[in-house]
Amino acid sequence: DNPMVLLGGMNVLESRDLAMRIAEHYVDVTGRLGIPYVFKASFDKANRSSLHSYRGPGLEAGLKILQEIKQTFNVPVITDVHEPHQAAPAAEVCDIIQLPAFLSRQTDLVQAMAQTGAVINIKKAQFLAPQEMQHILHKCEEAGNHQLMLCERGTSFGYNNLVVDMLGFTIMKAFGYPVIFDATHALQMPGGRADSADGRRAMAAQLARAGLSQGIAGLFLEAHPDPNQAKCDGPCALPLSKLEAYLQQMKAVDDLIKSLPELDTGS
Amino acid sequence: DNPMVLLGGMNVLESRDLAMRIAEHYVDVTGRLGIPYVFKASFDKANRSSLHSYRGPGLEAGLKILQEIKQTFNVPVITDVHEPHQAAPAAEVCDIIQLPAFLSRQTDLVQAMAQTGAVINIKKAQFLAPQEMQHILHKCEEAGNHQLMLCERGTSFGYNNLVVDMLGFTIMKAFGYPVIFDATHALQMPGGRADSADGRRAMAAQLARAGLSQGIAGLFLEAHPDPNQAKCDGPCALPLSKLEAYLQQMKAVDDLIKSLPELDTGS
Amino acid sequence: DNPMVLLGGMNVLESRDLAMRIAEHYVDVTGRLGIPYVFKASFDKANRSSLHSYRGPGLEAGLKILQEIKQTFNVPVITDVHEPHQAAPAAEVCDIIQLPAFLSRQTDLVQAMAQTGAVINIKKAQFLAPQEMQHILHKCEEAGNHQLMLCERGTSFGYNNLVVDMLGFTIMKAFGYPVIFDATHALQMPGGRADSADGRRAMAAQLARAGLSQGIAGLFLEAHPDPNQAKCDGPCALPLSKLEAYLQQMKAVDDLIKSLPELDTGS
Amino acid sequence: DNPMVLLGGMNVLESRDLAMRIAEHYVDVTGRLGIPYVFKASFDKANRSSLHSYRGPGLEAGLKILQEIKQTFNVPVITDVHEPHQAAPAAEVCDIIQLPAFLSRQTDLVQAMAQTGAVINIKKAQFLAPQEMQHILHKCEEAGNHQLMLCERGTSFGYNNLVVDMLGFTIMKAFGYPVIFDATHALQMPGGRADSADGRRAMAAQLARAGLSQGIAGLFLEAHPDPNQAKCDGPCALPLSKLEAYLQQMKAVDDLIKSLPELDTGS
Repeated sequence: DNPMVLLGGMNVLESRDLAMRIAEHYVDVTGRLGIPYVFKASFDKANRSSLHSYRGPGLEAGLKILQEIKQTFNVPVITDVHEPHQAAPAAEVCDIIQLPAFLSRQTDLVQAMAQTGAVINIKKAQFLAPQEMQHILHKCEEAGNHQLMLCERGTSFGYNNLVVDMLGFTIMKAFGYPVIFDATHALQMPGGRADSADGRRAMAAQLARAGLSQGIAGLFLEAHPDPNQAKCDGPCALPLSKLEAYLQQMKAVDDLIKSLPELDTGS
Repeated sequence: DNPMVLLGGMNVLESRDLAMRIAEHYVDVTGRLGIPYVFKASFDKANRSSLHSYRGPGLEAGLKILQEIKQTFNVPVITDVHEPHQAAPAAEVCDIIQLPAFLSRQTDLVQAMAQTGAVINIKKAQFLAPQEMQHILHKCEEAGNHQLMLCERGTSFGYNNLVVDMLGFTIMKAFGYPVIFDATHALQMPGGRADSADGRRAMAAQLARAGLSQGIAGLFLEAHPDPNQAKCDGPCALPLSKLEAYLQQMKAVDDLIKSLPELDTGS
Repeated sequence: DNPMVLLGGMNVLESRDLAMRIAEHYVDVTGRLGIPYVFKASFDKANRSSLHSYRGPGLEAGLKILQEIKQTFNVPVITDVHEPHQAAPAAEVCDIIQLPAFLSRQTDLVQAMAQTGAVINIKKAQFLAPQEMQHILHKCEEAGNHQLMLCERGTSFGYNNLVVDMLGFTIMKAFGYPVIFDATHALQMPGGRADSADGRRAMAAQLARAGLSQGIAGLFLEAHPDPNQAKCDGPCALPLSKLEAYLQQMKAVDDLIKSLPELDTGS
Repeated sequence: DNPMVLLGGMNVLESRDLAMRIAEHYVDVTGRLGIPYVFKASFDKANRSSLHSYRGPGLEAGLKILQEIKQTFNVPVITDVHEPHQAAPAAEVCDIIQLPAFLSRQTDLVQAMAQTGAVINIKKAQFLAPQEMQHILHKCEEAGNHQLMLCERGTSFGYNNLVVDMLGFTIMKAFGYPVIFDATHALQMPGGRADSADGRRAMAAQLARAGLSQGIAGLFLEAHPDPNQAKCDGPCALPLSKLEAYLQQMKAVDDLIKSLPELDTGS
């Protein structure tokens, strides 16, 4: 029941300067609010809808930017990896490496990541029930890694829509690892635009509040100074200018929830 | 943004004495907590899975109990009706009459209810999208009734399961009427037992907190002194002994949420 | 494994003359093709999205048209009822009375219908699993009626969409009653238009073929001479001019499927 | 509208001898029935639920077995690849290489596969709408490969269940490439057993008939001499002894469907 942490940043790395600017803003805001903070950005978007979509700077250049952010702002960093060979280099720079949702059952990737010794953030696939996440935890544990976290980001609900099953948080918390909520990807409407996903940015605060009402370890969040110009997932991104007001709300919710006594209603 | 109201009580009326006892407990607790309160009970469960399931005392005997509760405790009461001819007699006793979820598109029932002039609590059907609720509101409005409220109780999610789409609250709030959350029926697993629905009573607080995090008008809730002996929907019922601790939590969440400034993240 | 029957006709009764014209066409075509035939039409659409939508001629005038069709063409007729009091008069005229999908769990309606002694066509609700249909069968049996049939018409799949789970036919056939497929309502996209459902008429043959591939008792079908002018569910209606070619296909599929030997793949 | 092809074989390669035995049986049966045939087996199951589950002989040993089957029986072969570096070696042996459903949006894998010049069998992800498959086709086309096929294998339907949306076949056929149906994986109940998926083998014929009723290019099928002893996905596998009777049925359905005239019901 520690106060919420924030894994926050941007979707895909665009320029080095933009990443620095975004990181600086997150560091300032979370510092003022006393929220433990990890900077997040992707070096590659490996599963865009279209070949013509922007993918990112790639592993080497991306890790260089993450390294600079880590050193400049003295914050831990997280990035996602997509193939087993990326796990070790990513873990050299990053404190947390992330298993993407669509890839969360790929055993070789899970093992390569677990063996780095880095903390692993396991995104829950859109096609998995909360109970099934224990299998992925077991894979990591058997590879010798117990520094694990689970991250909810929505479940397939018919076509082109996601729904967040709030009861899933309680089920996953029972596995004994921190559970966080990716409150911006969960806004996605997959395949909702002609050649990319759509999103419901206007409800970013509502959905995050619901997740935090479940007494979870923290939030995962992506923001952008101009979401309409973001190179990936802009329809889900929080406008960076709203970050402080947004996090104030979320911290207030988290603080309250964690002050409430446990209530056994099951017997 | 008024403080939350509670439409709370029991599923189906069992004995008159049990109803009085439950009502008294609700009245005590909500009085201490300053929560505006409406007593809820059904005189008939018109869609049980099995013919052998208990249905209730029926319209006449049920309204008599509701009338006694209303007078004894000086509280408004709500009950659900299932056929057009029940609307008028129910509205003579009850301050609010409720349109059941499965029946929410039956035009004659909607019109008969609307024409009573009572407040109408419209349960959202498990098969309807939030946007579609506006059609039912329009039917009521065109019958001359603008004292309407909408009530979320979960959406079909595969077989034998419900999920609550938290984004639906925001969509329904935009229609301009109070939106409440039936936090116990939303725990149902339809068809989950051999001849009735199962439920997830142990997560009653978690789900209610999520709903209240959306800034809604109130909660709908069913409790029972011994849920395992309840004659209907026990697997979803809050143990009555936990009511005060439960409502304290919910009121704290509601108070906080309604103190937060509006946050425009959509532009 | 008798050859398929057809419960076919139109959605809602419009004029008497149109109903006669449609019935005549069905009778001609099914006579030529040797398909046992029951005429279907609704006297009331009790759950339209909007108050302004056409509902039909009502019970009395509707039954009069059905009676005329029955006598003129010497065919059995089927209609759906929505309230218990309609069951007996409907059963005086109709050979089969139909329990609507949304109402399929309303015990009083089920009992009133079962007690008429008419054959009951039970539409499977969009929110029920195939296994749950046995509860409705039991209700009818306990009311003394064993002349029952089940009718698949699609299951809620996310918002505003239906999907037909082909495996459900085998599950329901195991209950021992005829199972038929409503191949046009299953094309619905609920809430898909501004004030009514949309549909996928262009795939009417494809979906029906899939249903018949399951070895079922028959088809339920709605057609209209001009679907774009139909007063209800036109987006799902088969153009009447295509009826003969459509039924030829369906009969060919049914005949083939029923000629195939049973294949036990489960052991 | 060519007669159906069969991509059939076994789930994961177990011993070389078992693979030879299974291939021989398929070759015999399809030869007798005149069904164009491609042998399918996986060298690696890269996404098993548990680390302790059998994965297969690996790339090199697996391709050796596939090569022997190809030469011994003079049949084309297909296998699935999981990482970009596997595409080229797999395509040296295999006539068709398969993009796994969970990986179907991984751009690097799609490109590496497309660039081999082999035919690509694209499995439709459980989380994608039929319309979205065009994006994956475009990725292959832009990499210079137009020898593509799409393969339906079911869509997430709530938790631990799949449903096959029959209307998806027509939508995907409109993209202009062959569409086939994986009639055994579509029987899966993901996460349905303690540490693996469950399946509905007893309904193998029913589901396949439904798929073939849509006028598709062919079937994808996995069988095993003793499904209860199969090292992966036994609950979905057709008993090999039933193969001939099963394919006779399927060919009869396919032949009939393709003899039927096109029927325009949409105008």
